[in-house]
Formats: sequence, structure tokens, C-alpha cells
Amino acid sequence: MNILIIGGGGFVGRKIAASLAEKGSLRGQPITKLVLADVAQPDPVEAPFPVTGAACDITDRAAVDGLIGADVDVIFHLAAVVSAHAEADFEAGMQVNLFGTYNILERCRALGTCPVVVFTSSLAVFGGEVPDPITDFTIPNPQTSYGMQKAVGEMLINDYSRKGYIDGRGFRLPTISVRPGKPNRAASSFMSSIIREPLNGEPAICPVDPEQEHFYLSPRRCVQNLIKGAELDASDLGQQRCMTLPGLRLSIRQMIDALTAVAGPEPAKLIRWEEQPDIAAIVRGWRFDYRFDKATALGLEADQSFEENVRYYMEDDLPKT
Amino acid sequence: MNILIIGGGGFVGRKIAASLAEKGSLRGQPITKLVLADVAQPDPVEAPFPVTGAACDITDRAAVDGLIGADVDVIFHLAAVVSAHAEADFEAGMQVNLFGTYNILERCRALGTCPVVVFTSSLAVFGGEVPDPITDFTIPNPQTSYGMQKAVGEMLINDYSRKGYIDGRGFRLPTISVRPGKPNRAASSFMSSIIREPLNGEPAICPVDPEQEHFYLSPRRCVQNLIKGAELDASDLGQQRCMTLPGLRLSIRQMIDALTAVAGPEPAKLIRWEEQPDIAAIVRGWRFDYRFDKATALGLEADQSFEENVRYYMEDDLPKT
Repeated sequence: MNILIIGGGGFVGRKIAASLAEKGSLRGQPITKLVLADVAQPDPVEAPFPVTGAACDITDRAAVDGLIGADVDVIFHLAAVVSAHAEADFEAGMQVNLFGTYNILERCRALGTCPVVVFTSSLAVFGGEVPDPITDFTIPNPQTSYGMQKAVGEMLINDYSRKGYIDGRGFRLPTISVRPGKPNRAASSFMSSIIREPLNGEPAICPVDPEQEHFYLSPRRCVQNLIKGAELDASDLGQQRCMTLPGLRLSIRQMIDALTAVAGPEPAKLIRWEEQPDIAAIVRGWRFDYRFDKATALGLEADQSFEENVRYYMEDDLPKT
Repeated sequence: MNILIIGGGGFVGRKIAASLAEKGSLRGQPITKLVLADVAQPDPVEAPFPVTGAACDITDRAAVDGLIGADVDVIFHLAAVVSAHAEADFEAGMQVNLFGTYNILERCRALGTCPVVVFTSSLAVFGGEVPDPITDFTIPNPQTSYGMQKAVGEMLINDYSRKGYIDGRGFRLPTISVRPGKPNRAASSFMSSIIREPLNGEPAICPVDPEQEHFYLSPRRCVQNLIKGAELDASDLGQQRCMTLPGLRLSIRQMIDALTAVAGPEPAKLIRWEEQPDIAAIVRGWRFDYRFDKATALGLEADQSFEENVRYYMEDDLPKT
């Protein structure tokens, strides 16, 4: 089993790699090779099989052709320009998110080897005028260019699969919390910061109302779902290969209660409540009422409660002192 | 008002041109220029304003740049490789239907003039696992490459509009009947032939059961809707600029009853019932239970009854003897 992770330098890609290293097999076959590809060549991970890093700009068709050989069995395609970047730089978002995905799929079509392709889509495909709840049958009506590009990616994944060029499957990720690492400029950054920073002994700001709801998945469960997603039988996927991953709908208050239940009362005291109207307005525009029946029927899972998310962060990502 | 019809050599394009010639104005402004563009240069139509034909291959970005000037106010983008062709030749469908549309939109973005763009989409965007009825909020789940390419076109129309690069609107056409002209190789060809050929005094074959239902719109009403679609205020379109055009859900039997009601009992006697299992199987896979609330709210209209479709054919397209 020869595996390629495109976007292998990001935190989800590296966690998939680490999980595959531990697991040693995929789709019932021992893993013989793993390549982590990204714009900047990623460091390899420790594994009982050969792991290499590769630099690849997916907007360059020739580079993609060089990256994906006929011996690749499974591709995780996680590479993307993120939402704020794609909104600020329309051209960059189109080139990476839409044409980068197209280049990968076209290479697979040219090879004729029908690799499994796991595509990470986003709940940003949804929005606009559609009524709640947002189900497996709700029209994507993205209100960002990033969401549009992911929605187009889903269309391509489905049709290239229907034609037999790839064996694709796409998963719309809930907001990942608790994300490891540093805060970033995403409007959702605080949804991890308010848990992560206090657990690290650092202060954090919550810019929205404690009753604000949203839809979450832990990194550990996300990676489990993506790996399980790679292992699903094509025959179980039916005529729609893209779906919303299971997640938990939670208020900020529920998340902080879980933090306190797991880590005691001290961390929550490090959260400063400071409404930031611009962030609060963006987040109020996001949808959180999702159904994910198809993913559940296929055995994909949400976290059992947000206490799991807190615990996973402490076990997997808390900086060792 | 300077108007460009891309796909202006097809029967819908020519009917739009003829209708604009009669109307003389669009969006409240007198029409000053009309260009009909297609792969092969279309003949101009008679009009009280200058009309020219232009040859343009929309897969060629430079040709598209040459076609669309900063003075173009309204573009009707009807050009497409049809369903069977796009299914047989994946590359051709992608190049014309997806990248051709992209080239047009990119040219508009580069111009910065935000022209109105009317895009003809298709009910082929729907299919697969979605439940009936198919509403304005149903996910596109195309089961043909043509449908996928049209669904991607809708995504692009929406996002280029949201960004202010165009003022786009997309309309999913029901099956057009009674189409003028000759039978073609489309599986839906008989849906016009069984009315048109008998009215022309010629025999026709009906390859499906008389109870088979489908979803129809006349050419005349289609053109009225597309022109009205060009005239809608952007502010009335909301966050979803693509919609299913109103149509009539009818059985073959109802269509033939309408033929007889309008033209007497003789034409229907020219229909030979000859089940063709391959055609019947394709048509049974098509959806016909559509809702079109958004289009109706915007003032777009179905035919009142199929008798109108029969009459329109006789008035507009019946070959003069």
C-alpha cells in the first residue's frame, strides 16, 4: 500500500501520517511507502516503513505529474489555500483550490490506475438561503470563494469517480477543536484558543457570546474518520461520494464546562470575555445545524462529548514541560 | 444596450435574437448592438439595430478576450457540448462546458465592467440519491459529466457575482418541447418528435410508455424567461443566483391529448408505439418532480398547458408549405 498525502506538511496531514505509522496498514494491506508532499518539503515522520517528504506546487501540472506515479494506491488530498486567503486573493484560491485539485484528478485520469482519493471539503460549501437543518441533500450555496472552490472539488471528485478515473470520497470537516499550535488569523481561531491556551497556562480571549453555537470535531477523531474514509468500500458510497463528517453542536459555554470538567477550575479563569464585534458578526453568519446521516451510516463518528476533545488535546498535543 | 449571445447559432440563441429584435430594448434601454457568436459564425437576424455574427471557440481564452469587449452590457452564455457528447468525450465536455465558461467569466473579471451574464444550466445537475421533490434547496448530484460541468458553472456564476465580477443569473432549463428542426441523437429527442413530426405530416415513433412523466417547457416560454431573467434586478436574486425554470410535469399521454385538442385527431395517428428498451431505461432514470418557487416568485413562468406548446410550435416553427 503506497500512500501519498498532499498537504502533508499541515497538522492534519502530519497526524494522518503518524496514525498510519502506528497502524502499519491501510485497506487491509501493509503500508510499503508514504510520501508527504507540500509546497515546502515536509519532514518525514517516524514509521516502520519508508517515509519521504516531497516539495510540490499543485498549481504546476508537471510537478503534479512528477509527484503521482502509477504505483500510488491512496492519495489524501488536503492541500488548500485557506478561507481568508482565498477571499483576499481570488486568483490564488482558484489556482490552488480549484485547479490544483483538477491537476491531481487529471493526473489520475491519465494514469488509468484509479487510486483512492480522499478529499477534505468544508462546511463552507453551505450557506446563503438554505433552511436548517443542513442535511446530506442540501444544496451547497457557498458565500466565500473558498467554499465555492471546495464545492467544485466535490463535483469533480464525484464525476471522476463515476467515470472510474479515481475512487474518490470527500469529507466536509466540522471546525476542528482543539487545534494544536498557535492562534492564526482565521475568525474561528478562538474556538481552539479558548481551550488550548488555558491548558498551556496562558491567557485567551473569547470574542463572542457564551451561548454562541457551532459545530466541532477533535483532530484525533477527524484523522480517524479520514483514515476510515479511505478504507470504505466504493460500493458503499453510492452516487454521492461527498458528505459532512459527524460533529458536535455546542455552545461556547458547553466547551468551557467540558474544559473545567476535565482540567479543573483554574484554566477557565484564564479566559477573558471581550466581545469583538467583527469576529462575532462573522461567526453569527455561520451555520451549525447539520445532519450527517450518510457518514454515520458508514461508521464515521463524532466525539462523544467535548470532554474527549479536551482530553485528546492534553494527550496528543499539550506541549511537554 | 450592447448584447452578446454566446451559442448564438443554436435554436435558443436565434430565438432570443429574434425576440430581442422585436422587443428593441432590454433592461429598459434601447438595444444598440447585438453579436451572435458560435463556433461557426452564425448568420445575423433581421433587426432594427446592428446585428453581426462572430466565430469564437470559447475554449480559446484569447478568442474569448477578443469577443467580449468593455462595451458589452449583457451576455447570454448558452454555448455547451451536449450531454451525450460530453459523456462520450470527457475532455471536450470539460474544455467547452467548464473551461469555456471559466474563460468567459475570467474575461469579465479582467474587464471590471460587471456585465449581466445569463447562464443556461440544466436539470442534469440533479440526480443520484436525492429524494423527491427536487426543490431550490436540493443538492446537485449529477450523474453525467454534462450535469457536473453545468453544476460547476452554477457555482462559478454565483461566486463571480458575489465578488462583483459579473451580475450573473443561471437558469436550469426543463426539457424543451416542442423543439423545432430535426430529430437528434439525444435520448429526449422523441419528446419533441412525437408532436413535431405528426404536425409536419410525418410519422414518429414513441419509444416509451404513454404514462411516462417528464418536465417540459416550450421554446417560446423558455426564451421569454431567459430575457426576463436578464432583466431581473440583482437585488431580487439574493444569495443564490441559479434556479430551476418553471415547467409542466406531464405524461406522454397528456402531451398527445394536447396535440389532438389543438390539431384534431389526425396527427396522433402518425405516432407508432414501439418500446425501445434502451431509451425507455434512460428516461425512467430521469427526475420529473421539481419545485421552482424561486423562479415563480421572480415572475418566471411555465406554459399554462401543453396545448400552448403545440400552438407555439404551429405559430413559430411549423415549416410553411
